Amino acid sequence: MSAISPIGPVVGIVGAGQLARMSQPPAIALGVELRVLANTPEESAARVIVDTRIGDYRDLEVLRAFAQGCDVVTFDHEHVPTEHIKALVADGHTVRPGAEALVHAQDKAVMRERLSAIGVPCPAWRRVPSAGDATAFADSHGWPVVLKAVRGGYDGRGVWVCRTPEEVAEAFATGVELMAEAFVPFEREVSVLVARSPHGQGVSYPVVETVQQDGICVEVIAPAPDLDPEAAARAQHIGLQIAHELGVTGLLAVEMFQTARGFVVNELAMRPHNSGHWTIEGATTSQFEQHLRAVLDLPLGSPRMTAQVVVMANLLGGDDPDLFKRYEHVLAHDPGIKLHFYGKEVRPGRKIGHVTALGSNLDEVRARARHAAVYLMTGEYT
Amino acid sequence: MSAISPIGPVVGIVGAGQLARMSQPPAIALGVELRVLANTPEESAARVIVDTRIGDYRDLEVLRAFAQGCDVVTFDHEHVPTEHIKALVADGHTVRPGAEALVHAQDKAVMRERLSAIGVPCPAWRRVPSAGDATAFADSHGWPVVLKAVRGGYDGRGVWVCRTPEEVAEAFATGVELMAEAFVPFEREVSVLVARSPHGQGVSYPVVETVQQDGICVEVIAPAPDLDPEAAARAQHIGLQIAHELGVTGLLAVEMFQTARGFVVNELAMRPHNSGHWTIEGATTSQFEQHLRAVLDLPLGSPRMTAQVVVMANLLGGDDPDLFKRYEHVLAHDPGIKLHFYGKEVRPGRKIGHVTALGSNLDEVRARARHAAVYLMTGEYT
Repeated sequence: MSAISPIGPVVGIVGAGQLARMSQPPAIALGVELRVLANTPEESAARVIVDTRIGDYRDLEVLRAFAQGCDVVTFDHEHVPTEHIKALVADGHTVRPGAEALVHAQDKAVMRERLSAIGVPCPAWRRVPSAGDATAFADSHGWPVVLKAVRGGYDGRGVWVCRTPEEVAEAFATGVELMAEAFVPFEREVSVLVARSPHGQGVSYPVVETVQQDGICVEVIAPAPDLDPEAAARAQHIGLQIAHELGVTGLLAVEMFQTARGFVVNELAMRPHNSGHWTIEGATTSQFEQHLRAVLDLPLGSPRMTAQVVVMANLLGGDDPDLFKRYEHVLAHDPGIKLHFYGKEVRPGRKIGHVTALGSNLDEVRARARHAAVYLMTGEYT
Repeated sequence: MSAISPIGPVVGIVGAGQLARMSQPPAIALGVELRVLANTPEESAARVIVDTRIGDYRDLEVLRAFAQGCDVVTFDHEHVPTEHIKALVADGHTVRPGAEALVHAQDKAVMRERLSAIGVPCPAWRRVPSAGDATAFADSHGWPVVLKAVRGGYDGRGVWVCRTPEEVAEAFATGVELMAEAFVPFEREVSVLVARSPHGQGVSYPVVETVQQDGICVEVIAPAPDLDPEAAARAQHIGLQIAHELGVTGLLAVEMFQTARGFVVNELAMRPHNSGHWTIEGATTSQFEQHLRAVLDLPLGSPRMTAQVVVMANLLGGDDPDLFKRYEHVLAHDPGIKLHFYGKEVRPGRKIGHVTALGSNLDEVRARARHAAVYLMTGEYT
């Protein structure tokens, strides 16, 4: 906790993971003072933000104390209960994105209902109270069927691709509320990141390709290779349209499937997103700066790329906790590679950082990012 | 103070001004944990670095406690007494740059002796114990004569350009130890920023032009316009030579006069430098990241420019303390402008931030930087 009077505007971020952590560099530049609500002082953002408050974001009184003195409250994750956000607003606090928008990133059924209503392409879907309903949906729309937790899933958690009624039954055995979606046979996955300010200004970053393994994004390529400019404009339009229709303030990441028949929206996030980490070096305005500008209702920054090709590769924890000893090779091998560590203990499979390479040749830039990521994770040369 | 166990290497920075502050973004990215020694918790860097210790850097016991647990100790300014640095090293701490190198940035007479000995072009100079010695020096080398405080000057403070023996007497009336230098009739001022690691790796950033007003840098243009490539290489060679000969570890900024007969060295600084702020967006590796890499003896990063032309303009405090209300116009007017505020109270003449513009056309980029700087300082359009 800080007893120092702020000089700049105070932005409170609920949650203290790597997204809040990576918001600190642009906050430092802009003279914006960050405050975070962390579970423990060891968390990623708590290590680098002086005004860290410790508390449980599910407790309204904790949120109320946290919001006191903030010019705006925003989020590092989507788990704050909707009714708590409404209570903060009723108290007179400014919260961005607001509860009416954020619910679409919290509740996948609400999101599907709304996107369908405004004509955004989505997979066929249905709320499925029982395994029987899910099996009937699959029998009618085809197997496999995708079951998703209506609330609380992320990074592949809360998603089941079921090939048989038995697998459907297994998903229902978890006891969480599920919805069913038709499996979309996609060519690749792409993501569109847009920002929208309370004034209504909107900007879209270039469409990127996201490469997933086991439901976790491992690589992002900007711009999405060989994407027809008209198709790119359509995808960006979908992103801006959703931001406008849902009244999003701040960032909106729209994960989409690219299919032979066009784009189909998969997921929404209303905060800086893993598919936008490349913007830290790869765009004139990083997604983290953009989010701060948007929630403070400042004019948005240019989303233009700073290089022809940018590739971001995620670092997932391996067996060896000491990453720093592997800096030497990676930095000597590639004086242009950019490393990002999140100040987290290394645990197998955990997202602990990312690397970014910039250049003009896709194959070369991709190889550079991959070399650095694989070596940092495993100590092996590629 | 922080009780959290560090995950990454700990770099202690003595001093908590804007240079330490701007080191925090690359430290966050690299997973390096910064600790600063501040005079008060309100200082620029203390506002954004969790592990801030409060104390007087002139007190050896304060420095000893500060250094405990740091992997390396470095500096935000040059005012730490040489004997204290030697004492820390004798205790077993790693300090970079070391006392033997740093003294050349602390004592201008020692610097002149050493640079002259290694053949680096300097103005004619002499230690002048009395006003009579200074007047005799001026009579022999020509008027005006430049008198400089041997220790402790910066930003034009501690420098007197004297046109008459009366003005010489006024400088001596301050009581500080002075040296005399011949006035150099220069075409312009340039700066070379180099980095050197303990392993001996060296890199040089492009030569920049620095525009001064009343002894304070107001604008930096990268690269220095119309500089002949051979001349640029000579200036870079001088920078790398000084770093090598003096055993610098970390950054070295060499301020030079460009004259009809070549470059003449004016001042040295062994830390990130105002003439290198453009590198935050304008180079693949910012000077702040480079300094961290150098003092940690990591491989140095690429100093390549990210745009053809980069212009940095300093923001000096004016009469109106509220800068934030002027963000709106500047950010809306130029979606590509980058703002940097140092979290300092606005006081007339104080360096409170800078702006950076990137592009391909010098006149246009310079006009953009100037427009933003003038508006932010005064609220006037240019």
